[in-house]
Amino acid sequence: MPITLDTTAPDFEARFTDLLSAKREDSPDVDDIVAGIIADVRARGDAAVIALTERFDRMTLTPDTLRFSQTEIATLIAQVPESERAALELAAERIRAYHARQMPEDASWTDENGAMLGWRWTPVSAAGLYVPGGLASYPSSVLMNAIPAKVAGVGRLAITVPTPDGKANPLVLLAAQIAGVDEIYRIGGAQAIAALAYGTETIAPVDKITGPGNAFVATAKRRVFGKVGIDMIAGPSEILVIADKGQNPDWIALDMLSQAEHDESAQAILITTDADLARDVGAAIGRHLQTLERRAIAGASWRDYGAIILVSDLTTAATLSNRIAPEHLELCVADPEALSQQITHAGAIFLGAWTPEAIGDYVGGPNHVLPTARSARFSSGLSVMDFLKRTTLAKMTPEALRAIGPAAETLAISESLEAHGLSVRARLDHLNG
Amino acid sequence: MPITLDTTAPDFEARFTDLLSAKREDSPDVDDIVAGIIADVRARGDAAVIALTERFDRMTLTPDTLRFSQTEIATLIAQVPESERAALELAAERIRAYHARQMPEDASWTDENGAMLGWRWTPVSAAGLYVPGGLASYPSSVLMNAIPAKVAGVGRLAITVPTPDGKANPLVLLAAQIAGVDEIYRIGGAQAIAALAYGTETIAPVDKITGPGNAFVATAKRRVFGKVGIDMIAGPSEILVIADKGQNPDWIALDMLSQAEHDESAQAILITTDADLARDVGAAIGRHLQTLERRAIAGASWRDYGAIILVSDLTTAATLSNRIAPEHLELCVADPEALSQQITHAGAIFLGAWTPEAIGDYVGGPNHVLPTARSARFSSGLSVMDFLKRTTLAKMTPEALRAIGPAAETLAISESLEAHGLSVRARLDHLNG
Repeated sequence: MPITLDTTAPDFEARFTDLLSAKREDSPDVDDIVAGIIADVRARGDAAVIALTERFDRMTLTPDTLRFSQTEIATLIAQVPESERAALELAAERIRAYHARQMPEDASWTDENGAMLGWRWTPVSAAGLYVPGGLASYPSSVLMNAIPAKVAGVGRLAITVPTPDGKANPLVLLAAQIAGVDEIYRIGGAQAIAALAYGTETIAPVDKITGPGNAFVATAKRRVFGKVGIDMIAGPSEILVIADKGQNPDWIALDMLSQAEHDESAQAILITTDADLARDVGAAIGRHLQTLERRAIAGASWRDYGAIILVSDLTTAATLSNRIAPEHLELCVADPEALSQQITHAGAIFLGAWTPEAIGDYVGGPNHVLPTARSARFSSGLSVMDFLKRTTLAKMTPEALRAIGPAAETLAISESLEAHGLSVRARLDHLNG
Repeated sequence: MPITLDTTAPDFEARFTDLLSAKREDSPDVDDIVAGIIADVRARGDAAVIALTERFDRMTLTPDTLRFSQTEIATLIAQVPESERAALELAAERIRAYHARQMPEDASWTDENGAMLGWRWTPVSAAGLYVPGGLASYPSSVLMNAIPAKVAGVGRLAITVPTPDGKANPLVLLAAQIAGVDEIYRIGGAQAIAALAYGTETIAPVDKITGPGNAFVATAKRRVFGKVGIDMIAGPSEILVIADKGQNPDWIALDMLSQAEHDESAQAILITTDADLARDVGAAIGRHLQTLERRAIAGASWRDYGAIILVSDLTTAATLSNRIAPEHLELCVADPEALSQQITHAGAIFLGAWTPEAIGDYVGGPNHVLPTARSARFSSGLSVMDFLKRTTLAKMTPEALRAIGPAAETLAISESLEAHGLSVRARLDHLNG
């Protein structure tokens, strides 16, 4: 059974701290294997990628078949039912509209000394997106990763998606097409990350790699970081629901189970001011766990990591929520806007009972790639910013250099950096001489 | 001697590729040592930090003296000459004004279905700034790290700065005071990073750690990443100067040497359309290397990693620059604004001959913590954004859920995530029933 906590209990603080520090992920140490795979791809390029795909995915490829052809893509996506195509297109349109608003502006101004200052944003030239194969091959994740890249202006966007035993997911290919992906390779694992980072004869290297993956993929991303940029390393999903009296317990139970069904390591927590609701949500979860298709996964998550916390008031709920810094936070309360003002750390907030978290997974518009494992304390979800970088700009005039150059020279000398000082002094002497 | 390249030579591409791939940093592998230090600090807290400081910095501390007292700080900074204080204050004021303009705006809007969407920025609650001791203890770096944190609204900002043999740098303490730093600890190395990330009895843990350091510090930052956020791992500094005919060769030589003097692994490159200028800059560097205080360091950097590249036109210069993706880029050309439009990857651009890079190190306003080792292809310099995170917001109405909920349900079913679909369906049924 999941734990039930009450803030008025004498051992609450100790038990809440245990909940906060519970390690939910037990990643196998695959560092040596991954290092070997990366070295092999760097040394042998396509040949290594082909051999590793044969071994892990039981697929015999050639340099010519590493990439999906346009014909194959067209044939596969023709299988997608019209209702699913329409749903993907609606999702894509809404994600695109939301992320277009994130585009930051360039700036340029002249200060009181006549110096021009500013910055300029430019897109990453080429990005690679890892898409898992098999059960966790989610078309929605393709949209959530690819659309921000294209909105940012990334010129070349490549996807790698493994197709074990030759099985491709037509919805993933359709999502890639809708998002404007330029190249799709049927490879996966650490070898795909190595190919994207270092390039092979067939696959040109990229500058940034995003997307979820298993322990091999996550370890490979950590290893190629520096050579290329990477997004965060995602952990298991989490949801925190804050609810007050009068909320629908069945809706809350389903929202909590929609995280729990992702992964046995996922976590669903309810914080409520209402003891009856606490009891009713627990009961509703128990009922759904008898029939849900993924009840084995959701049940294990709920049993091992689920929690219901009873609090005296919503301010206490917000305080506990900020200590948890949840990936997803639902505010199922009468005045969600007011409560949201007290939230300082959360990946995404879903306001009110009409906003199930699943809306955010698919069609809401905001990104569903969000900081897990309490990292919302210091990081944000995926956005166009992940595919942009800022160049700062400065232009001095002789007058501006006269005004601020001497201070630079003073600081350079105080730091024993003589050439720094001389580079300013030579120009000041020219102005004065 | 540094290499000289000419784009018209038949072996240019091969030699330029060699220049791009030159590995300038040879970090010792200290991973096991650092892992041991972090484990020790996690297990023993203050006692471990005190023992390690005794061993590495030859300083005997107690929990009461880990932190500089207000009296000590006041006594030390009273030693700073007025000219240096005024220079630091001018620098701080300009850095603050520049970074204040970077503050991003919250957003909130209602879409065509009545759904509210948006996002909100919040600061990291607590940040730690690592400041190296000894020769590389730069007050300017304190300003460049601390001011963006405070502009972003970080509530608690702690500095760690080792004081080997008890030697503290008064300018570092003054810079911290000017920047509004809240706590200063006289500790360093991996033990300081561990204390900031995990906390001890005396030092409360932070959420984000920034600042430069040696191999031990960099390795420790990589290891605590995930538990806390970190900034980039900085490599040796670089400058690229693009110059056309008629520029002052002595100024360019000094600008290049002001990077070379940082570190034997630093790199200074000139790309010019003018063979005479190429020759004159090389000669001027040679002259200065006979007298410069740090001529041993600057000379080694220039000898091992320096380069002068002759090109036929400025468009070629921009193309090569974009392949290099330099940390610092000076455009010493007649029309720097026009040339800057062709630059797609650079950490910072300094426009025109009156803007020596050293201005940017101290008083320009933009940050001097910039992406090295070609990482300007995918990352940006330090900014207020490093101390902020974004929470996305969504609020559906019954009407909005009716409009977009069915698409979410369709996608959830296609991804075999039944509870996701049911959480939407339960609400739609309620609306329809």
